[in-house]
Amino acid sequence: MSEQSNAGPPTPLTTVRRSAKRGVYDRAVIDAILDEGLVCHVAFVHEGKPCLIPTAYARNGGWLYLHGAQKNRMLQAICGQAACVTVTLLDGLVLARSAFHHSVNYRSVVLYGEGEEVRDASEKMRAMERLVEHIVPGRWAEARQPTDDELNATLIVRISTDECSAKVRTGPPIDDEEDLSLGVWAGVLPMDRTWGEPLPDDLLPPAIPAPPYVANYSRPKG
Amino acid sequence: MSEQSNAGPPTPLTTVRRSAKRGVYDRAVIDAILDEGLVCHVAFVHEGKPCLIPTAYARNGGWLYLHGAQKNRMLQAICGQAACVTVTLLDGLVLARSAFHHSVNYRSVVLYGEGEEVRDASEKMRAMERLVEHIVPGRWAEARQPTDDELNATLIVRISTDECSAKVRTGPPIDDEEDLSLGVWAGVLPMDRTWGEPLPDDLLPPAIPAPPYVANYSRPKG
Repeated sequence: MSEQSNAGPPTPLTTVRRSAKRGVYDRAVIDAILDEGLVCHVAFVHEGKPCLIPTAYARNGGWLYLHGAQKNRMLQAICGQAACVTVTLLDGLVLARSAFHHSVNYRSVVLYGEGEEVRDASEKMRAMERLVEHIVPGRWAEARQPTDDELNATLIVRISTDECSAKVRTGPPIDDEEDLSLGVWAGVLPMDRTWGEPLPDDLLPPAIPAPPYVANYSRPKG
Repeated sequence: MSEQSNAGPPTPLTTVRRSAKRGVYDRAVIDAILDEGLVCHVAFVHEGKPCLIPTAYARNGGWLYLHGAQKNRMLQAICGQAACVTVTLLDGLVLARSAFHHSVNYRSVVLYGEGEEVRDASEKMRAMERLVEHIVPGRWAEARQPTDDELNATLIVRISTDECSAKVRTGPPIDDEEDLSLGVWAGVLPMDRTWGEPLPDDLLPPAIPAPPYVANYSRPKG
């Protein structure tokens, strides 16, 4: 996951226009957001209308991999067609003295590209490995590997990460000068994702403990 | 936030097709997901291509409210045009014995509708109140209220929540019968959002403590 994809210059699609100072085009920042996120949202056009589905993903170098059943409507819709993929991480709530200047701290990536079906069996297998390892690093080596039937039942679609940009807000609220003396608490409430005690499957023999990659689970932090 | 919007029957757009048994059309479940989420993703079509932006939102009865600057490209694009809005909550990672049956527990809502600019000043003000209260319940009464200039600088767009459905996965992994004896740990790693210590703004006098709605912050749980 440490391999970086190529950083292209911002294009008309990826140039951040709203709050342009929050735009980030640094490939390392973009890849770190993609690697920390758990699910992405995929937008596509179906019969002229926008559609939007959350789904798992994994990055491998300069490609984002998506997967689903062969008949998955979203995956079918983006093969050879334009898609927009977003990964969003929320880092905190920003409380300004004025209602107007309230905000959130976040890191997001917006990526434009066309989906491309992965047909090569070994790339498909590597993509499935990345998809599992993206969610639970260390899991692939222990889980039962996909059979040919499972591989054939799975549609893997990749999208280049070349055309993308990040948008990042960090730091305290930005209040108007004249509001600073208002006596209203202002600041940031940080948020994070946390992981509870692993819940073993009812059918699992009690002698099998949760492996360290589950018991000590954490996400890479960008 | 307890007012429910009307539940319509599933339409061709909102009928869940993939993993159809996960489809939920119960208005109370849908509203609870919308009220627990912090940000939504909005898909729209721009020059024939799909675009996708994360943004804050708030529900009030049967409407979802979005806001931004008057020139906000996404908000302008969805006024009188089709939009798709998704709110996704991740609840856990589902580790099956086979790589193929790995999954995540989640609750998501997908909503289809056209954006409609809110021009009425009192509805605009109520929408801003809902937007602040959605993120930090209790904040609106304490924050400095919007001025006329701030109200005029803000574009508020509402979308009906009539055409929407939820998709929910809960519970343990579903492994193939023949994998149950594999000796691989299987179960669910629950995830949650947590809130850190409030970080006061550097410009805040130390005598002003974090109010209870910040110090004891939590989200409604569906």
